[in-house]
Amino acid sequence: MKRLKEKILKEGLVLSEDILKVDNFLNHQIDPVLMQEIGQEFAKQFQQESVSKVLTIESSGIAPALMTALELGVPVVFARKKKSLTLTDSFYESKIFSFTKQEINTVVVSKKLLTNEDRVLIIDDFLANGQAAEGLIEVVKMAGAHLSGVGIVIEKAFQNGGARLRQAGIRVESLVEIASLANGQITFK
Amino acid sequence: MKRLKEKILKEGLVLSEDILKVDNFLNHQIDPVLMQEIGQEFAKQFQQESVSKVLTIESSGIAPALMTALELGVPVVFARKKKSLTLTDSFYESKIFSFTKQEINTVVVSKKLLTNEDRVLIIDDFLANGQAAEGLIEVVKMAGAHLSGVGIVIEKAFQNGGARLRQAGIRVESLVEIASLANGQITFK
Repeated sequence: MKRLKEKILKEGLVLSEDILKVDNFLNHQIDPVLMQEIGQEFAKQFQQESVSKVLTIESSGIAPALMTALELGVPVVFARKKKSLTLTDSFYESKIFSFTKQEINTVVVSKKLLTNEDRVLIIDDFLANGQAAEGLIEVVKMAGAHLSGVGIVIEKAFQNGGARLRQAGIRVESLVEIASLANGQITFK
Repeated sequence: MKRLKEKILKEGLVLSEDILKVDNFLNHQIDPVLMQEIGQEFAKQFQQESVSKVLTIESSGIAPALMTALELGVPVVFARKKKSLTLTDSFYESKIFSFTKQEINTVVVSKKLLTNEDRVLIIDDFLANGQAAEGLIEVVKMAGAHLSGVGIVIEKAFQNGGARLRQAGIRVESLVEIASLANGQITFK
């Protein structure tokens, strides 16, 4: 996606060989028009899949997932990182390790929101080591739902998450793949 | 907002005299079309305010805030509940007590994303005791920005947050005001 690449080059900050900061338009401040275009692109890529539900994880996944769901005309569910007092239902539960935050999060999805009749498209902002995506895939499996694929805004292709998911036969579509962040330089694949 | 009231009556669950669960369309599963209508309604109500930025707090505020920002043609910033490793800038910081989760969250907003030239519209999913809104207002003040107003999807009018904000001269627009949740009944104001 050309405009996303331009935005990354213009406003992305390389913090280390592993960390690209895109707080300006993706995960702290959000550019709604760019997000709408991202949603349209994912909807186009997965339009043959008869998706019935978009699944993501709070918080940075919500914006691209919501725009994708709007385009596809289906609801979006975001996995929550902690049990809230209003989450009284039984739920699917999965543990996800975050390298960025160096913590394990238990994410939960209410059972009533995902069933074995659903065809699920997972959307997230980043794919690096693949932990978040795998946690969400586990939830889809627990529900007995069909996994239509995984849509990622920015894939760090130099980390192994994407390769592992694709080797497992999962369709992964990344709008932008970054080959390297070495020497403070953003190199696309 | 008629469609929102209908949705609340049809899918909202009264968990106690204080807690209304709207996980089906607002804060776990999201109805994107309803959210788009909510964004259009807030944009209409605040269109005279020359809003330059929408401000909300993760996670449930993101969807209505994003749709409002899309309509207004401005960016949205969501306050983050915890310092991430990629939040290296200096930031505005505010403490917010959550009654639902019974915990204090420190929320942060990067200083570069909010300046004294901004005209800020705060959007959130719920207004009850007003802690979240007041925390965000504190951030707006720290930035020296202008507060254009506060847009709330569902106000629990039987709690005192809305009254306190309005007494302080702040414009608060709630799409739905709930007068009572007593006896398991949802009563609109």
